[in-house]
Amino acid sequence: MTINSDKWLVLYRTVHFGDTDGAGVMHFHQLFRWCHEAWEESLEHYGISLSEIFPTNSHQKYPPEIALPIIKCEASFRHPIHAGEKLEIRLKPTKIDNSRFQIESTFLINKNVVAIGSIQHLAINQETRKRCEMPQAILLWLEASSINTGPKPI
Amino acid sequence: MTINSDKWLVLYRTVHFGDTDGAGVMHFHQLFRWCHEAWEESLEHYGISLSEIFPTNSHQKYPPEIALPIIKCEASFRHPIHAGEKLEIRLKPTKIDNSRFQIESTFLINKNVVAIGSIQHLAINQETRKRCEMPQAILLWLEASSINTGPKPI
Amino acid sequence: MTINSDKWLVLYRTVHFGDTDGAGVMHFHQLFRWCHEAWEESLEHYGISLSEIFPTNSHQKYPPEIALPIIKCEASFRHPIHAGEKLEIRLKPTKIDNSRFQIESTFLINKNVVAIGSIQHLAINQETRKRCEMPQAILLWLEASSINTGPKPI
Amino acid sequence: MTINSDKWLVLYRTVHFGDTDGAGVMHFHQLFRWCHEAWEESLEHYGISLSEIFPTNSHQKYPPEIALPIIKCEASFRHPIHAGEKLEIRLKPTKIDNSRFQIESTFLINKNVVAIGSIQHLAINQETRKRCEMPQAILLWLEASSINTGPKPI
Repeated sequence: MTINSDKWLVLYRTVHFGDTDGAGVMHFHQLFRWCHEAWEESLEHYGISLSEIFPTNSHQKYPPEIALPIIKCEASFRHPIHAGEKLEIRLKPTKIDNSRFQIESTFLINKNVVAIGSIQHLAINQETRKRCEMPQAILLWLEASSINTGPKPI
Repeated sequence: MTINSDKWLVLYRTVHFGDTDGAGVMHFHQLFRWCHEAWEESLEHYGISLSEIFPTNSHQKYPPEIALPIIKCEASFRHPIHAGEKLEIRLKPTKIDNSRFQIESTFLINKNVVAIGSIQHLAINQETRKRCEMPQAILLWLEASSINTGPKPI
Repeated sequence: MTINSDKWLVLYRTVHFGDTDGAGVMHFHQLFRWCHEAWEESLEHYGISLSEIFPTNSHQKYPPEIALPIIKCEASFRHPIHAGEKLEIRLKPTKIDNSRFQIESTFLINKNVVAIGSIQHLAINQETRKRCEMPQAILLWLEASSINTGPKPI
Repeated sequence: MTINSDKWLVLYRTVHFGDTDGAGVMHFHQLFRWCHEAWEESLEHYGISLSEIFPTNSHQKYPPEIALPIIKCEASFRHPIHAGEKLEIRLKPTKIDNSRFQIESTFLINKNVVAIGSIQHLAINQETRKRCEMPQAILLWLEASSINTGPKPI
C-alpha cells in the first residue's frame, strides 16, 4: 500500500490583486496568511474537520478543549511575487515534542522557490491555559506527513 | 455648558503603505477597517471601554451580553488615497431604532472628501441571538453625538 | 451549442480561521476580499489572464492602459459565517454603461443565502485618469455572463 | 545636548476588535502589520516623509529610486493580546551593512513583554533590482536611533 501525501502536503493558490501593495508585489505579511490557510487546507484534505481544531463560536456543541496558539513564526523572501502568479506550496510538518509542532511552507513559482514561511504551534488546555498534549488528530496528521516526507527506509 | 463632540467624532489617521495595493492606492476594503477602528476610537474618546462592548475571550469576567453584529455596510470612493496621506475622519452616528444604529464616516484629505463609508449594527442577545435593545453605553454615545451634530431645524 | 457559465459564475471557498474575529464569526469586511477574489477567479475561469487586467509591477511589459478602480460597494449580512464552513458564491455581473460595471456576489451555505456583496467598477485611462471604455476582455466576460444568467422574459 | 529618541522609538497603539480571531486574541500575523506601521510612524516622528521612502503611485513626481523589500521577518508570541488592550511598542533599529537594516519591535502591555517582531530590509535599485546603498534618510534615522539606544561599552 502506498500512502500518497501529495494530496495534503502540496497545495496550490493564485496570488490575488489584494495581496499586493504599492510596490506591485505581495505585501510581506500576507505570506503568513497563506501559510495558515495552507495548513487548514492540508488538515481538511487529510480528513480532519476544521471545527474539531478551531474554536468557532460560543454555540459550538463541542468546542475544542485544546487551543493551538502560535508561539513563533518566521519567513524569508527570495523573489518578488506578483498578482496572478500561480503558487505551489509544499508543507513540511514536524513534531517537536508532545505539545509543539511546526509547519514549514515552501512557496514555488515555476519550480523556483520564492519564499519560505514557518509557523510553530503550542498545544494548551483551553481552560487552564497550561501546556498539554496536542490533539490526537494533529498527531496522526503529523505522523502520516513524516512517513511521507521522512527518510525513506533502506 | 458646551459639550465638545469634536474630541470623539473627529479622528485622524495616516495611510500606511500596507493599506495600498498594486495600483498604488488604498485597497478598497481597507476603508471598512478604518471605519470600524474609527468607531472604536470614538467610543474610547467618549469614555467607553472597548471590553464593555466587544467580546474579548472566554476568560472575560463579564462578557458583553449584547452582541452588535454588522448587518449592512456601504462605501463610495471619490478620490484615490495614497500611502502617507493624512486623513481626517468625521463620524455621524444615527440611532435607527432601539436595536439598530448606523455610523457614517466621511474621510477627508486637505478638507476634500475622498471617501465615505457607512456601517449598520443590530443589537442581539448573545445567548438567544434575538434582537434586543442596544447597550446603554451606546445609547448615551449616540445621544451625545446627535446633540453635538446639532438639533435639526423645525 | 450550450455555453455553461457555471464554471465561471459559481465559485467555492472554505472560511478560514483567520477570517473570523473575536465574536467567532467572519469579520465583516473580509466579505469584500472574498468578492474581489471571486471576481478574479471568475475572469480566470472564463479565460482572461489577471495580468491583462491588473497592474502588477513597473517591469510589466504591457501594463494595462485602463485601470478599474472601485467607486462603490455594499454588503448585507444575514447569517453568521463560521470557520470551516463551505461557501458557494454566485456572481451576477451587470454592465451599467460603457465604462461602468457591477458584480453582485451572493454567498450561500447549504443553499441558504448568508450574505450578499456588491462592487462597482469604473474604467479610467491610466494616464489621464479620465473615464474611458472598459477593456474588451471585460466586455466579453460581461456579455457571456448575461447571456447565461438568461434573457429576461418580456 | 540630549537627543530624545523616545518620540520616535517608543510608540503606542490600541488593539482593535478586527485584529482578533475566533480564539478571542490577536491573530498572529497582525503583529507584522503593527511592526511595519510602527516603523512608518517612527520615520515620520523622526521627520522623514513617507513619500520619500515608499512608492505611492505612477504619478508621483519623484518616485523613490531605491526600494526596500523585506527579505526576512520573524516573531515570537509570549502572551495572548486582546481587543482594547494598550500596547507600548519599543523599536530597536540596527544597521547590518550599507544595504541592509533590521527593526526589532517589542510589544508591551503594562510593562510586560507580550510579543516581539523583527523585520529585515534590503535596499535595491528600483530599475536594476540590484542591491545598493540604503537611502540617506534611513541611514540618518538608523544612526540617530543607535546613538540613543546608547553607545556600546568597549
